[in-house]
Amino acid sequence: MSKHQRIMAGTLSETNVNESVLLKGWVQKRRDLGGLIFIDLRDASGTVQIVFNPDHSQTALEIAETVRSEYVVEVEGTVVKRDASTINPNMKTGEIEVIVSAITVLNKAKTPPFAIQDKAETSEDLRLTYRYLDLRRQPLQDTFKLRHQITQAVRHFLNEQHFLEMETPILTKSTPEGARDYLVPSRVHKGEFYALPQSPQLFKQLIMMGGFEKYYQIARCFRDEDLRADRQPEFTQIDIETSFLTSDEIMQLTEQMMQYVMKEVKGIDISLPLKRMPYEEAMARYGSDKPDTRFGMELIHVADIVKNSNFKVFQSTIESGGLVALLNVKQQATAFSRKDIDKLTEFVKVYGAKGLAWFKVEGAELKGPIAKFISEEEKTALLEAAQAEDGDLLLFVADKTNIVYDSLGALRLKLGKELGLIDQSAFHFLWVTDWPLLEYDEEQGRYFAAHHPFTSPVAADREKLDTEPENVKANAYDLVLNGYELGGGSIRIHQTELQQEMFKVLGFSETDAREQFGFLLEALEYGAPPHGGVALGLDRIVMLLAGRTNLRDTILFPKTASASDLLTNAPSEVDKTQLDELSIQLISHKEDKAADK
Amino acid sequence: MSKHQRIMAGTLSETNVNESVLLKGWVQKRRDLGGLIFIDLRDASGTVQIVFNPDHSQTALEIAETVRSEYVVEVEGTVVKRDASTINPNMKTGEIEVIVSAITVLNKAKTPPFAIQDKAETSEDLRLTYRYLDLRRQPLQDTFKLRHQITQAVRHFLNEQHFLEMETPILTKSTPEGARDYLVPSRVHKGEFYALPQSPQLFKQLIMMGGFEKYYQIARCFRDEDLRADRQPEFTQIDIETSFLTSDEIMQLTEQMMQYVMKEVKGIDISLPLKRMPYEEAMARYGSDKPDTRFGMELIHVADIVKNSNFKVFQSTIESGGLVALLNVKQQATAFSRKDIDKLTEFVKVYGAKGLAWFKVEGAELKGPIAKFISEEEKTALLEAAQAEDGDLLLFVADKTNIVYDSLGALRLKLGKELGLIDQSAFHFLWVTDWPLLEYDEEQGRYFAAHHPFTSPVAADREKLDTEPENVKANAYDLVLNGYELGGGSIRIHQTELQQEMFKVLGFSETDAREQFGFLLEALEYGAPPHGGVALGLDRIVMLLAGRTNLRDTILFPKTASASDLLTNAPSEVDKTQLDELSIQLISHKEDKAADK
Repeated sequence: MSKHQRIMAGTLSETNVNESVLLKGWVQKRRDLGGLIFIDLRDASGTVQIVFNPDHSQTALEIAETVRSEYVVEVEGTVVKRDASTINPNMKTGEIEVIVSAITVLNKAKTPPFAIQDKAETSEDLRLTYRYLDLRRQPLQDTFKLRHQITQAVRHFLNEQHFLEMETPILTKSTPEGARDYLVPSRVHKGEFYALPQSPQLFKQLIMMGGFEKYYQIARCFRDEDLRADRQPEFTQIDIETSFLTSDEIMQLTEQMMQYVMKEVKGIDISLPLKRMPYEEAMARYGSDKPDTRFGMELIHVADIVKNSNFKVFQSTIESGGLVALLNVKQQATAFSRKDIDKLTEFVKVYGAKGLAWFKVEGAELKGPIAKFISEEEKTALLEAAQAEDGDLLLFVADKTNIVYDSLGALRLKLGKELGLIDQSAFHFLWVTDWPLLEYDEEQGRYFAAHHPFTSPVAADREKLDTEPENVKANAYDLVLNGYELGGGSIRIHQTELQQEMFKVLGFSETDAREQFGFLLEALEYGAPPHGGVALGLDRIVMLLAGRTNLRDTILFPKTASASDLLTNAPSEVDKTQLDELSIQLISHKEDKAADK
Repeated sequence: MSKHQRIMAGTLSETNVNESVLLKGWVQKRRDLGGLIFIDLRDASGTVQIVFNPDHSQTALEIAETVRSEYVVEVEGTVVKRDASTINPNMKTGEIEVIVSAITVLNKAKTPPFAIQDKAETSEDLRLTYRYLDLRRQPLQDTFKLRHQITQAVRHFLNEQHFLEMETPILTKSTPEGARDYLVPSRVHKGEFYALPQSPQLFKQLIMMGGFEKYYQIARCFRDEDLRADRQPEFTQIDIETSFLTSDEIMQLTEQMMQYVMKEVKGIDISLPLKRMPYEEAMARYGSDKPDTRFGMELIHVADIVKNSNFKVFQSTIESGGLVALLNVKQQATAFSRKDIDKLTEFVKVYGAKGLAWFKVEGAELKGPIAKFISEEEKTALLEAAQAEDGDLLLFVADKTNIVYDSLGALRLKLGKELGLIDQSAFHFLWVTDWPLLEYDEEQGRYFAAHHPFTSPVAADREKLDTEPENVKANAYDLVLNGYELGGGSIRIHQTELQQEMFKVLGFSETDAREQFGFLLEALEYGAPPHGGVALGLDRIVMLLAGRTNLRDTILFPKTASASDLLTNAPSEVDKTQLDELSIQLISHKEDKAADK
């Protein structure tokens, strides 16, 4: 019956009226009405209403009586304009319908475990088990079209800039910092393992040493760690590396790329240059290294005002080197009961805060349990610092620096969301710069690379690496969007001596450094160019641009929080013969189970 | 010194004369001549000659005296036209040179273990160990530019056809046919394993069941098998799947894509439709399922002529169901001595042939050791069948069918190459169709899927699946270029019953089928559309279009034949603590070694 070429359902419109068409797709919905049958026929382009009328084809009508939701059918028919009364303004093709002359059932379908509709009303586990059904829902169809558009826009932009897309290995070397590496036993080299890459970091640096000056890759990365809602064992990053560019030039390139993507896929103009904020400023103002700048309610630092306060908590905190800061929750004094505030106190305790001090502003007065400890002078200064007015609620944390930042940063986000302070249609990009190069780990008594061990210090701090490593700034930058870290990058170390010094600061013996990174140290000796780059999380970009909140919705076949694929049931046990071939065996009772198979 | 923007060395020409330029790159070669220093400065775009002249800058000259090959430098200077006598016509920028006013050394370089020049004159192992140096050579730079162009052309073509690029998982489920799976132990689910995908086959089928009708991916695939020169443990394929298309439509799409790629990256017009040849014809005419059709010298079947021959080998072979076929090596009778022919005999023995019978044609006579067994009538018929003329050499194999094909097919290729019969600039594409669906394995006493268990039989053979599986043809097609299989595809099974029957023919119990492929069988029940696709090996396409013969030259960081990365030294031993976390341990002495670390 295919004398016509197939036409896509979603493309039909009034211009097709009177045309004979061939359609293929899924039965979205069937309605029997007054001797007629109406079916919403769905294909990858959209949906159209097809009508079975005994006057046109009794045979077709009889077949139509047998079809159910998700049957796959092929129909021939004629496009007609709908009566004014039956036009469906909520449907793109709602002005027309197709009167069917013939239908063939291409495949049947059992009743799906959940309806294929825009709004998911069933558990995520069930949807992941039947992912192929979940994917038929329009919001997911749209998300993966968007994902495609984003990656193609990225490629288009970078291709125009003469970047080469290149593929780095997935079977790579395990590194000592690789506690989170997925390992792959080798069959040929028994007892040895490959590791799946956490990022193509070293390979992209080697590409620069290979004389390619502009590399990119939409790269799959792997991390075997405890999963959170916004983490997946495998994820995708837009991975970029360049030679001879400065950090300013790389940031410029990156933001031009994001500007192009936003324009291409969202039709939104982003003005450049993007705002930049030093790490310390971001922490001080937002209590976060990835501040959501779509709304205010910044942290207000009042240690200077309350350092001699009769409220001893303030005083002692400041004396022991801590901070006192507050959020001014505008015009919410009456909205928050004591009980509400108790809940907020519980919330900040999760972040280590000992408590939450608070005042309600009434007129020019502070009310609340600790108001009595605040002097007139302090009150005036606090009101001014907080730009507080009648009806405002002031929430204080006095604690160690990082606890003040963590707790007030989180509280700010929570209140921003709950009070509707965030413009959900806005896209606020921000560069966070001037990162510390190293972090000291008290427990292990050594420094760790804040980013990775190949990040270069800023030139001005080069000499401090030996003497005061904690004060060395990295030549690094992170890109933040709406409070999410999209990714970041840095200028890399391109000189052997500096890389060796860095390894030393990180506690590597010379032997260890050579054993683990000998190939890098050697490569740096053969004319390595100055180089640097950036890596942005594609999944997260898709999530934010699609307006979604669950990272799993942006990944075609995602894994659960326990890293399982519910659809195919991976991971799974394997035959003992397979393990024998790899010269490995299972420890404990699991071994016997595998042996029994 | 960067008041100018950097300009790329390879882009300079006469149009830049008198311009001040800033260049950055590598010292390709330094020559000191009459008080001047000449350096070929190389960057990713090409090379330009820069000149240090004491009249311009004594300081720059002095620095230039210290630089060596592969130093990374930044120079400022003025473009000048060369004297007519010093113009270098072999250099793209040979009409001009840059008189340097200032130079900065950005990084030093030790003397490389091999020279960075077009022709590699050192062992491949050494070049792989210093892959970043090898990559600086122009032929490799060109190959990866070509690879980029090919992938972008593929994407452009498919995007225009409304395909969506989608990412399938790398951490997947191991399958029972998965003897070649790379396994990845799970940390969360101890005793269980993921497998790296040998192809995204099932996922792309599930994508079709997810209602996306046109999918593609430049997909990384993995196969843990004994490696040959043209195999790598990880490789990349252009992976395509569509719903509702026929095999003809998929072949048409694929060849249009290849036509577009050839035009875009090679400027070569390929005329469509591509030739098609049934599998059996390819075997009979070329002794190969991937014939190189750039030259003739086809197999000539002469069993009918020699079936009663006095040469008993011919007779008995035919009686026991074997074949007798010959190659006519035109005008090579005198060029091949007995010793030469003995060598060819040794060659075919590798393919299982018991021997190589031969005649030289002299006038209208056959000469050679077995000529006396050939009757006058047979001689005439042979000469006619072979279209033999004075001076031709006829080489016969009489043996089992597959041995005749394998040995003469290989001999044909060998002679075609050695005698220069192949037009190296030609690109001969060919579809091989009508493949058998199943292959019988004598040893294991069961059928195996010739392609994979999800390939559908042609409709006409559907009924034979139960009764005479060996005669069932697959709805499958392979694309061949110049004797290399680029890849292939098929229409997949989209109905549960047929898939179940297929598993049964392959010897799966119902339980096994459910356990291993339950999710597929179930997915087929929920409205799976008719679907099919194709997968082409990107590495091989790059190799052929780049005119290279080593697959490793097309992969950025390839592994050796024993699956090692000589640059980073992967695979390698890992800490016992890492294995403990995965609840696995090594078998045998290797365990102790790891424990000692």
